[in-house]
Amino acid sequence: MNNIQHHDIKKLALDYGTPLYVYSKQSIEDNYTKLRDTFMKYYPHTRIHFSVKANSNLHILKQFNDMGCGADCSSPYEVMLAKHAGFSDDRIIYTGNYESVSDFSSLTDYKVKVNLDDITSFSRMHSVYNPEVISFRINPGIGKGGYEGITTGGTDAKFGVPYEKALYGYQLAKEKGYKRFGIHMMTGSNNLEPYYFAQVVEKLMMIAGNIFDKIGSAPEYVDIGGGFGIPYEDDDEVLDIELTAKLVAEVFEEKCAKYGFGKPSLLLEPGRYLVGNAGWLITKVTGVKHSYKHFVGVDAGMSTLIRPALYGAKHRTYVYGKDVPEWNVNLCGQICENSDIFAKNVFMPPVSEGDLLILRDVGAYGFTMASNYNNRPRPAEVIIDNDNVRLIRRREKFEDFLRLYES
Amino acid sequence: MNNIQHHDIKKLALDYGTPLYVYSKQSIEDNYTKLRDTFMKYYPHTRIHFSVKANSNLHILKQFNDMGCGADCSSPYEVMLAKHAGFSDDRIIYTGNYESVSDFSSLTDYKVKVNLDDITSFSRMHSVYNPEVISFRINPGIGKGGYEGITTGGTDAKFGVPYEKALYGYQLAKEKGYKRFGIHMMTGSNNLEPYYFAQVVEKLMMIAGNIFDKIGSAPEYVDIGGGFGIPYEDDDEVLDIELTAKLVAEVFEEKCAKYGFGKPSLLLEPGRYLVGNAGWLITKVTGVKHSYKHFVGVDAGMSTLIRPALYGAKHRTYVYGKDVPEWNVNLCGQICENSDIFAKNVFMPPVSEGDLLILRDVGAYGFTMASNYNNRPRPAEVIIDNDNVRLIRRREKFEDFLRLYES
Repeated sequence: MNNIQHHDIKKLALDYGTPLYVYSKQSIEDNYTKLRDTFMKYYPHTRIHFSVKANSNLHILKQFNDMGCGADCSSPYEVMLAKHAGFSDDRIIYTGNYESVSDFSSLTDYKVKVNLDDITSFSRMHSVYNPEVISFRINPGIGKGGYEGITTGGTDAKFGVPYEKALYGYQLAKEKGYKRFGIHMMTGSNNLEPYYFAQVVEKLMMIAGNIFDKIGSAPEYVDIGGGFGIPYEDDDEVLDIELTAKLVAEVFEEKCAKYGFGKPSLLLEPGRYLVGNAGWLITKVTGVKHSYKHFVGVDAGMSTLIRPALYGAKHRTYVYGKDVPEWNVNLCGQICENSDIFAKNVFMPPVSEGDLLILRDVGAYGFTMASNYNNRPRPAEVIIDNDNVRLIRRREKFEDFLRLYES
Repeated sequence: MNNIQHHDIKKLALDYGTPLYVYSKQSIEDNYTKLRDTFMKYYPHTRIHFSVKANSNLHILKQFNDMGCGADCSSPYEVMLAKHAGFSDDRIIYTGNYESVSDFSSLTDYKVKVNLDDITSFSRMHSVYNPEVISFRINPGIGKGGYEGITTGGTDAKFGVPYEKALYGYQLAKEKGYKRFGIHMMTGSNNLEPYYFAQVVEKLMMIAGNIFDKIGSAPEYVDIGGGFGIPYEDDDEVLDIELTAKLVAEVFEEKCAKYGFGKPSLLLEPGRYLVGNAGWLITKVTGVKHSYKHFVGVDAGMSTLIRPALYGAKHRTYVYGKDVPEWNVNLCGQICENSDIFAKNVFMPPVSEGDLLILRDVGAYGFTMASNYNNRPRPAEVIIDNDNVRLIRRREKFEDFLRLYES
């Protein structure tokens, strides 16, 4: 692998140093357009909110804003970042988790939507912030994620209101004078099976049908979260988004008709699906060790990209200028900890010091989860915009490490 | 639990906000003094180097420097931090992993010791940096850690030179004109068994005996790394440091005599042992959810302390002002991800919003592994110094998140 969209990888490494996150503006646009157009074909009132936690680079947020996408924010600072990137309040949703009163207080300058994580969240919010629409995040009692850690629904998940209790939340909001409502669900991340999405939407709609019948109202929006997966390995399925949209729209419209909901907005909150495959990590081989195995060490590590250490996640890795996978290697980061292994027993072309490696599909949950462990600086980020490459976040410097000691 | 060393926890939370890392200067001093005095009683040429990656707060590094301790650094920026904290070059050791040429280049302003991770590391270093003493990190083929991720020796570990090959490294260094040598080993972290330490030292010394016999020299220092564990749960053993020091010194002196090594320095590189139990994390309950279980949500998360999510690590947790553990709870962070659970099915006093929780033994690998995931700011750090409490790193602000976009 020598190029990322016609840009020579060696030149990128020389110009910006390694490790380096590289994004493609075109890929992000393609992903967004495909998801939006496919869902809107089947249900025109679909609205997409990009999940900021997947990639919160300000320049990428600006691109999403320019494309007309909304922002799904998981913390007050993500709301502030979205505002900084230009999103209007009506296109921002804040979905927290055990939101504190001070989390809600920080929203008072805005008029953003909120999906409440619990009935008690309503009381905390109501004391300081009053949005126009009240929405609860429902835990439908089922959930599925690519890994257990990213499964966000089900009886052992920490998220949302158990559906059996949700009615009480809406009744409480109605008593307090709220008249406009939404409903939300997010059951897991990185799913690749269309019928799974249809199944959870069906379940959510049945829960919604019961709730809104009892309170004599209808939801203005139904937010089904994200969870649209991407393939990380050659033999992973590709999520059939056409079939997913068709199935989701069908069950959604059928239930809307059945419960007399009219045409509420269908909200999606994808993160990984929009940016995952639009990011690459370029890293340089710093050492090759023929120890008990072949160990290839690089200048990135779990401080740069923690998904392999944290979830056992796999990222396909290529070598600049070399194609034939002859070695069986452990691909190691440079952090002083044995967790810091990107891949074990993978086949790779023979490499030597200075060779460039490219990890793909790191556009989501890459930089946003980076740390300064071992006092390694967080890497630079660049974006490819057709013939141009732009630095969109500079590499950290030693001076940055001293900043928080100043008052 | 209401106090940390006579300081009211509620007052600390009010004065500095939550989540908050709190350290005890006295505990750090006690840990250091105990380890140093015990080892020096059995072997007076013991030298302790604090493992900076465990806790790299500049003020804590300064305390170690003031106490006469050395610094064990795992990256160039850790060397620069140690210099910034006042350590003299002769008390700094750099032990990297797949060290790059640029890692070594960054050392040229100093005269620090280096433990080389591989024979190829020697060649990379020799081209740009020439320390007075050459030392290799040996993988003795055995290893043991509290978790697999922190096991750093053995045939599947990415660290060190396999002992069968190490001789060649020393021969190469000798050919290049080096006359002074050390030897290093680090096989795992958080071990609680004294005989384990004696066993690995025995093995390292046998390897050293063979190497230094063949090259007709003797090591000036033998660096046995760290790995001294601490109890994280009530029923964990406490490492018997007296027995450990006695056993290590015995086998060390016996082998030194046998191989004619004289009295080399015995270097230790503890991190966790010196600061682990000297740190607490104060966090506030933001929400309590009686979902399918009791879920207690707090304002810290895996962005603040990743050990539970990454290793399944346990940290005993207390509630301010409450003692009777009546609830079975999942203790949840506020990051939008189901990995972000500090503990599952633990018994805890009934709590409500605003209650303060205290996680103990977070002084090591707490803040140093923190991130900005979900765009949550990294917390403030304070240290208790007898009657005084000092802010030793301020909490991040939103403006800090924008800094890397400026050129």
